[in-house]
Amino acid sequence: MEDRKKLLETFENAYPDRDYVIEHTAPEFTSVCPKTGQPDFATMILEYIPDQLCVELKAYKIYLTSFRNDGIFYESVTNMILDDLVAVLQPRYMRITAEFNVRGGISSVIEVEHHKEESIN
Amino acid sequence: MEDRKKLLETFENAYPDRDYVIEHTAPEFTSVCPKTGQPDFATMILEYIPDQLCVELKAYKIYLTSFRNDGIFYESVTNMILDDLVAVLQPRYMRITAEFNVRGGISSVIEVEHHKEESIN
Amino acid sequence: MEDRKKLLETFENAYPDRDYVIEHTAPEFTSVCPKTGQPDFATMILEYIPDQLCVELKAYKIYLTSFRNDGIFYESVTNMILDDLVAVLQPRYMRITAEFNVRGGISSVIEVEHHKEESIN
Amino acid sequence: MEDRKKLLETFENAYPDRDYVIEHTAPEFTSVCPKTGQPDFATMILEYIPDQLCVELKAYKIYLTSFRNDGIFYESVTNMILDDLVAVLQPRYMRITAEFNVRGGISSVIEVEHHKEESIN
Amino acid sequence: MEDRKKLLETFENAYPDRDYVIEHTAPEFTSVCPKTGQPDFATMILEYIPDQLCVELKAYKIYLTSFRNDGIFYESVTNMILDDLVAVLQPRYMRITAEFNVRGGISSVIEVEHHKEESIN
Amino acid sequence: MEDRKKLLETFENAYPDRDYVIEHTAPEFTSVCPKTGQPDFATMILEYIPDQLCVELKAYKIYLTSFRNDGIFYESVTNMILDDLVAVLQPRYMRITAEFNVRGGISSVIEVEHHKEESIN
Amino acid sequence: MEDRKKLLETFENAYPDRDYVIEHTAPEFTSVCPKTGQPDFATMILEYIPDQLCVELKAYKIYLTSFRNDGIFYESVTNMILDDLVAVLQPRYMRITAEFNVRGGISSVIEVEHHKEESIN
Amino acid sequence: MEDRKKLLETFENAYPDRDYVIEHTAPEFTSVCPKTGQPDFATMILEYIPDQLCVELKAYKIYLTSFRNDGIFYESVTNMILDDLVAVLQPRYMRITAEFNVRGGISSVIEVEHHKEESIN
Amino acid sequence: MEDRKKLLETFENAYPDRDYVIEHTAPEFTSVCPKTGQPDFATMILEYIPDQLCVELKAYKIYLTSFRNDGIFYESVTNMILDDLVAVLQPRYMRITAEFNVRGGISSVIEVEHHKEESIN
Amino acid sequence: MEDRKKLLETFENAYPDRDYVIEHTAPEFTSVCPKTGQPDFATMILEYIPDQLCVELKAYKIYLTSFRNDGIFYESVTNMILDDLVAVLQPRYMRITAEFNVRGGISSVIEVEHHKEESIN
Repeated sequence: MEDRKKLLETFENAYPDRDYVIEHTAPEFTSVCPKTGQPDFATMILEYIPDQLCVELKAYKIYLTSFRNDGIFYESVTNMILDDLVAVLQPRYMRITAEFNVRGGISSVIEVEHHKEESIN
Repeated sequence: MEDRKKLLETFENAYPDRDYVIEHTAPEFTSVCPKTGQPDFATMILEYIPDQLCVELKAYKIYLTSFRNDGIFYESVTNMILDDLVAVLQPRYMRITAEFNVRGGISSVIEVEHHKEESIN
Repeated sequence: MEDRKKLLETFENAYPDRDYVIEHTAPEFTSVCPKTGQPDFATMILEYIPDQLCVELKAYKIYLTSFRNDGIFYESVTNMILDDLVAVLQPRYMRITAEFNVRGGISSVIEVEHHKEESIN
Repeated sequence: MEDRKKLLETFENAYPDRDYVIEHTAPEFTSVCPKTGQPDFATMILEYIPDQLCVELKAYKIYLTSFRNDGIFYESVTNMILDDLVAVLQPRYMRITAEFNVRGGISSVIEVEHHKEESIN
Repeated sequence: MEDRKKLLETFENAYPDRDYVIEHTAPEFTSVCPKTGQPDFATMILEYIPDQLCVELKAYKIYLTSFRNDGIFYESVTNMILDDLVAVLQPRYMRITAEFNVRGGISSVIEVEHHKEESIN
Repeated sequence: MEDRKKLLETFENAYPDRDYVIEHTAPEFTSVCPKTGQPDFATMILEYIPDQLCVELKAYKIYLTSFRNDGIFYESVTNMILDDLVAVLQPRYMRITAEFNVRGGISSVIEVEHHKEESIN
Repeated sequence: MEDRKKLLETFENAYPDRDYVIEHTAPEFTSVCPKTGQPDFATMILEYIPDQLCVELKAYKIYLTSFRNDGIFYESVTNMILDDLVAVLQPRYMRITAEFNVRGGISSVIEVEHHKEESIN
Repeated sequence: MEDRKKLLETFENAYPDRDYVIEHTAPEFTSVCPKTGQPDFATMILEYIPDQLCVELKAYKIYLTSFRNDGIFYESVTNMILDDLVAVLQPRYMRITAEFNVRGGISSVIEVEHHKEESIN
Repeated sequence: MEDRKKLLETFENAYPDRDYVIEHTAPEFTSVCPKTGQPDFATMILEYIPDQLCVELKAYKIYLTSFRNDGIFYESVTNMILDDLVAVLQPRYMRITAEFNVRGGISSVIEVEHHKEESIN
Repeated sequence: MEDRKKLLETFENAYPDRDYVIEHTAPEFTSVCPKTGQPDFATMILEYIPDQLCVELKAYKIYLTSFRNDGIFYESVTNMILDDLVAVLQPRYMRITAEFNVRGGISSVIEVEHHKEESIN
């Protein structure tokens, strides 16, 4: 698990003097429910204001795919992705919105934010 | 009626140091109109910022299903669900939006909010 | 169960010399899964060409509502509603299309037809 | 009631040598339910292949508006409008599709057709 | 006209200690244009924060239906409905949004608000 | 009026050995109502199977624009456009579908077809 | 051109003690491009808070129609309509949003606002 | 691979005297591209007319999930699912429509049908 | 130009005993208008029933991309793509539907079909 | 590259005393991925409040088309277009929103803003 962060490659932000927003929407996220062993599906939306680094898109895709056969809860996976990206990119602002498909007649959304001043370990 | 709250199971919030939003949308809520005895139907949207506890999704579904054959008004059921969830979860913020189907050519929405500082008994 | 058919009231078709189509769409059908005990939800679409009789709309609604707490499979309930309506109305043509909500990530549709020449007991 | 047909004005079809289709969609049809006294609402769709006569659009609108305060059932009003238009226009083909709003959680459509060979009195 | 307000029945707000929003959307409002005598159609959206009283839904429907054959302008009917509801309910906040169908190629919306501090006679 | 046809330029069909369909959808057609003097608006859909000639797109646009200030009825303009295009292109098949905007609460569609065997003068 | 303003008729605002919003959406606006001579098409949205006067809807339609054969740029026609309406109505607030159809693969929106304190000549 | 078919459980068709259609839509199908090793995603639509047997819905879901980590081409997986279901259910008619997500800017659909008279080994 | 066909790679159809449909939708097709030099854009939809060969998806994408800077008319490019694919795949059936974006206020669709019995050189 | 800015032609803002918004949406932007050599596609949305100058629409289109065969990253092209337009127009406010099509199952949006006080070289 602690190795997953290494999948995230970065490139230098060429416009660090300007605050601007990058958004990547990945509708093909899938992991496994730790209780039932059945697959879960979500659209994972990443929005951030870069500081010195941007996430490389293909590496980000491989990072998301690495959750494919892991058993993990909705709330945990969303917070964990935020923590990994914040640790690697040190962005000025970041938000993850995870929209999970219907389970038991109920659909769920988890939305987590990070602001620069908040410390991350 | 006073037993219904016991249906709500919880699990510990693993990220209590961060404010984040959990949203569960249940389009299959149904109860009974106390005046006509005919069934009512609604989409029940729960949004909250957890403090120490999150609601377990399957238990929440069973809790909602428990209203299936109860006669209860739109305004009452929406406020009652908020009160039950606030009492059990003690969230930092919570909102229930209940979107009821057309009756007599009119559709209705009830929207109720709770903020931590407001006291709930 | 054998009494349910009696809920269906009829009125005389005032235009029996002309073939025409009547369609009633009921998006609030609900019954109970006989395996899990959890509620099922469907949109029930009735299309028919009346012969001498039409189904009274309010009685039809009460008939559909009578399934609310019955445990019954998708395929059975759709065929049973067709059989009941055909027995009472003796229509020239009838089709029931039942569109069931997502269960286990899968939504289902059952479509059953009746033509006059086919005998119903 | 027998006077209503007189509201329908016509103009000569300038292209009688060619079969072509005219469609008028009127989403603002309203009449009154003869049982409850409450208003009903429908979208009234008229499609026809003219022979020697076309219906004048403004007169057709006034004709539809004349049902505003009449108590009349779904099936009757749809067949009656077809009969009136067929009697006045003598079209090669005509279809009325009446899409009624939700009542008691159920929406209804009535679809009636006329072909030239069928005699209308 | 001054009697119309009497059609509005109320019931006691069971949750007066909490500000919450009730919304009723009525897509079947119709009145008559005082200039042309032709019917007008609108979707009438009522949103309010109740104080001690809520409007009874069936009575509200009958109240709206009472405009069916009255000749009245868009701006007037919207303001008049707000005044009647404010006088009867004394709400903490109320908004009426009336969305009128296309006339002469133009559709219109009238939006009127009331806040408690504003005096109504 | 008889000059309008001259606006239609053509180019040679490079694939005359194969039946294939060309469709041009023009949502910005406008002419004038001969009774009221007010502008009418339509989406004009042309579908055809070319024989030896195709219509040049820019010329077709100018042809449609030439109706801008002419007073002409729905049924006439649709048939006239078909006649002009058939006379110039001699297609194997052609259909014009004219979808007119709402007037007096009613929208209209006129659909006219031409098959090769039918003679056009 | 300076006469166009005279087309705008008004009626007295019956509710001047209350700020409320009137919105008229006209999807059939058309003028002519001064460079190419080809017609332009737009949806013209007018929103305003009336002071003592409201614009009469039919006169407003005729006013908009008066641009039909005028050559005028997007930015100019939107500002000009605002200036004319402000001069005639003296509203508390007004906004014009003009949504122009695709030209050269690009669609355009011009949005212009007026607040009472801003002086108009 | 040859064991996968054993995952498909069946139940007896209670209405074998009537031809009717069962449709199951599974938007969460995923397998792996055998060339790139990257996951593929599809909506898998099953339509069939049962003979003596119907497929049990939960077992069908587990069957579909069994492809999750298999490397297999679009055309192969669609035909293979048809063959497995036909072998187990012996239906009167069956169709599989597999709608695959965008890859390289292109989305794909594979549609395979089986009719009873066609022999399957 | 005559080399373009070589870009199309194939793989063997593993299910040649069964007629089935393969559909590839490419919304990012672009070429250049030979008259104006400006780019054209289309969604290119390929449907076919394979005989012994299927088109490899990545090679098909590169084939479509090869038109990027070519000046070519709508009708020609659509027929040419059909001819190339038919020559390489020898399918039992094939259809190309090319949906071109708005130009001069008009959008266009070209639809071309091939059946096995028709000879292609 | 430094010449591209010269493609941007301007015209004088005729209403410099009023802040208003101009928006141009170009859904046909395409450039080339510098890593893979494959084309990228985006909808490019420009919003600005002009000062003394407006961008001429046809010149802006030609400017956007000039990127057609350039290899450039998402983040770079969006910032570069903002810089070019700000340098030429000196607007009071400007925002570019670039919505890129799906690549590797992920769609991306880049949003960049400029306010007058920020210095641009």
